[in-house]
Amino acid sequence: MALIKPRLLKGFRDYLPEKMIFRQKMMETIKSVYQRFGFLPLETPAIEYADILLGKYGNEGEKLLYHFKDNGGRDVALKYDLTVPLARVVAQYQELPKPIKVYQMAPVWRAENPQKGRYREFYQCDADIVGTKSLMADAECIALMSETLKALAIENFIIFTSNRKILNGILKDLEIPPEKYFPILRIIDRLDKVGEEKTLECLFEEIEDAKKLKKIMQAIKGKGSDEICKEFPSAKEGVDELENVIRYAKNLGVEEKNCKINLSVVRGLDYYTGTVFETKINDLPNIGSVFSGGRYDDLIGRFIGRSLPAVGTSIGLDRLFAALEELKLTNTGVSPVKIMIANLEDDFILDYQNLATKFRQAGINTIIYFDKVPLTKQLSYASELKIPFVLIFGSKEKEKGIYVLKNMDKQLQEELNLEKIIARLN
Amino acid sequence: MALIKPRLLKGFRDYLPEKMIFRQKMMETIKSVYQRFGFLPLETPAIEYADILLGKYGNEGEKLLYHFKDNGGRDVALKYDLTVPLARVVAQYQELPKPIKVYQMAPVWRAENPQKGRYREFYQCDADIVGTKSLMADAECIALMSETLKALAIENFIIFTSNRKILNGILKDLEIPPEKYFPILRIIDRLDKVGEEKTLECLFEEIEDAKKLKKIMQAIKGKGSDEICKEFPSAKEGVDELENVIRYAKNLGVEEKNCKINLSVVRGLDYYTGTVFETKINDLPNIGSVFSGGRYDDLIGRFIGRSLPAVGTSIGLDRLFAALEELKLTNTGVSPVKIMIANLEDDFILDYQNLATKFRQAGINTIIYFDKVPLTKQLSYASELKIPFVLIFGSKEKEKGIYVLKNMDKQLQEELNLEKIIARLN
Repeated sequence: MALIKPRLLKGFRDYLPEKMIFRQKMMETIKSVYQRFGFLPLETPAIEYADILLGKYGNEGEKLLYHFKDNGGRDVALKYDLTVPLARVVAQYQELPKPIKVYQMAPVWRAENPQKGRYREFYQCDADIVGTKSLMADAECIALMSETLKALAIENFIIFTSNRKILNGILKDLEIPPEKYFPILRIIDRLDKVGEEKTLECLFEEIEDAKKLKKIMQAIKGKGSDEICKEFPSAKEGVDELENVIRYAKNLGVEEKNCKINLSVVRGLDYYTGTVFETKINDLPNIGSVFSGGRYDDLIGRFIGRSLPAVGTSIGLDRLFAALEELKLTNTGVSPVKIMIANLEDDFILDYQNLATKFRQAGINTIIYFDKVPLTKQLSYASELKIPFVLIFGSKEKEKGIYVLKNMDKQLQEELNLEKIIARLN
Repeated sequence: MALIKPRLLKGFRDYLPEKMIFRQKMMETIKSVYQRFGFLPLETPAIEYADILLGKYGNEGEKLLYHFKDNGGRDVALKYDLTVPLARVVAQYQELPKPIKVYQMAPVWRAENPQKGRYREFYQCDADIVGTKSLMADAECIALMSETLKALAIENFIIFTSNRKILNGILKDLEIPPEKYFPILRIIDRLDKVGEEKTLECLFEEIEDAKKLKKIMQAIKGKGSDEICKEFPSAKEGVDELENVIRYAKNLGVEEKNCKINLSVVRGLDYYTGTVFETKINDLPNIGSVFSGGRYDDLIGRFIGRSLPAVGTSIGLDRLFAALEELKLTNTGVSPVKIMIANLEDDFILDYQNLATKFRQAGINTIIYFDKVPLTKQLSYASELKIPFVLIFGSKEKEKGIYVLKNMDKQLQEELNLEKIIARLN
């Protein structure tokens, strides 16, 4: 039989144990913060009917869908995000009590051009609140983002917040035709990335009126809210919402330094209708937003024909993981396996198994070294795996009725009885 | 815009919060047992190059693959199980220390005909030991299965164990041509399902020798191991291995009643080479095996050209979940949200947020009711969500400087200060 070369698809990655241990801790931390905010778990399938996902992500997004025919000839696609499947769920099970706060932690797939921190398969951890227009809900998302990042030991971040109604209101008062709003918003969204000159150039292709362009840029770049409302009355609703959201978020404990208004924030997806936010980690300016979302009051309506308000946020877990890897923060330095029982004599297999069972019953993560190879080899295995303790038990120890506990870090050996060892390891 | 009907693909399921809460607990329990046995976490992508997966599952299995071209025209497929991706990983990263004990918890996809407890997407929780021929490793898998089921409060189960070398040895000594071994094994595998008569019928098509057939059936149906070894010397290696595995498993604490030899157990996949096992829950005879696996010493060799011994087991999590659902064991009866703060006055939003933050900082899962609707409506919401406590705080309470804590289960209200409430909820 010809050998198959073991290899990964481009843009995908394996999480081997050493990294997976840290990644699992990350996920546990995120989950516990989400739960503290009262979000309940939800899970939906990886595969959906394609028409559920189509028409939600804009043309550019849609090109990245993993879209294919299944074995029954059905037109299907892999999840592109967790928001649209959530909208499908809320529409499908209308009996769910509302408002509903749910979180999802699951992979999504996008056939992107792979680049640093950007994968074709990555986990998102979404939290969504469906069924209320209350701006407290928007603020909870911001507070959740702040608390989650802090729980992950990231302190130096900024959550940039805006409200789509502001830019839409400005464009309306400038008498820009509505079909141009979203293309214009997408250009403005890239302002911080490409700079003012390039942005103006792109905007001019859409608007072709230097005076209007100047007014837009002035508004974005730091007019006070009073001034904006005076000049563009249609923006007032958005400005008021944004101010309340920020006030509520701060009242929920979000610090001044972690939370700024930035009117150029739009987010790329076309379904947002009000509040939008994204998060930059200051020490990692190149990795883009790790945590973002906003209010999407009309998305669920595309399934049920009436508006159902919703707001949510999403963390890009694998991008964040890649960022922490870059900062060399993902190595935990110690194995979750607490003790390895060395294998010194073939006749002692039953003893080793009994010992392992006793340790495990005491809640201690334990392995037996399966093969009788020289002890030095077994010890270097334990040290490669960063297992902190090794139990040494051979005929000599059996005769004396003791066990030798080797502390791998301190390279110390002690003769102890079993009780003491269990107490030491717990 | 035309409405899209929200709907699921056949054979797939959503886990709404009520069920997901229990399912998560199940997964946590499984994970903690796997960790106690010293297995380390591993995760691989959902999508692989198709040639990695092809030729591993037999013709019938292969038909069930989700197999398609990706956007770059690459021939890809969704994971069908977790064993082959593990084999790919071990072959690809040969620097991984061995023996290696890893576990994976991830969905796999099979385009099966949906039936009770059988889905097209389902989670498997696999534990594998790669790099040792020691039969202690096979026994650890059996002990792991037993401990995991007990931790899930399932006591009434039987792990049926066999060894492929026994049937292969019998067939060899009966001078059956080797290319017929696997088809014959697959027929025997269905003995307990279809009965002896049907099995003999199917076997006759392969063997066409009534005397040989009778000998096979007698061996399977309970000859002693001495007798088998005497009549079929080629089966002796398998018999010895099987006896040692069972002895080791029992020594690791697996009870007599939970562990039986059954020579008709084969497992459907063609990559097993020695020990094989599967698990029946006695109270649920119709759902098939929920936990199974075996030794596959040659699978990794298909990638690296030399044998690397391995043994593993896999739990069918969603099948098990469906079983527990049928037994009405999946309803946890209480929300992970501990307290809901009722919304009595618009002016109190900042107070409600402060309270929520205090509770959350004390580790208490807390929600605020976002909209000011009548209290009765808020209370029935809390009771529908099975939230055990509601905090009532309006102008009357503010004046008195107290908080009302309502115990939803006992329908009891108490006036308390904040400290006492936090103590009560922790």
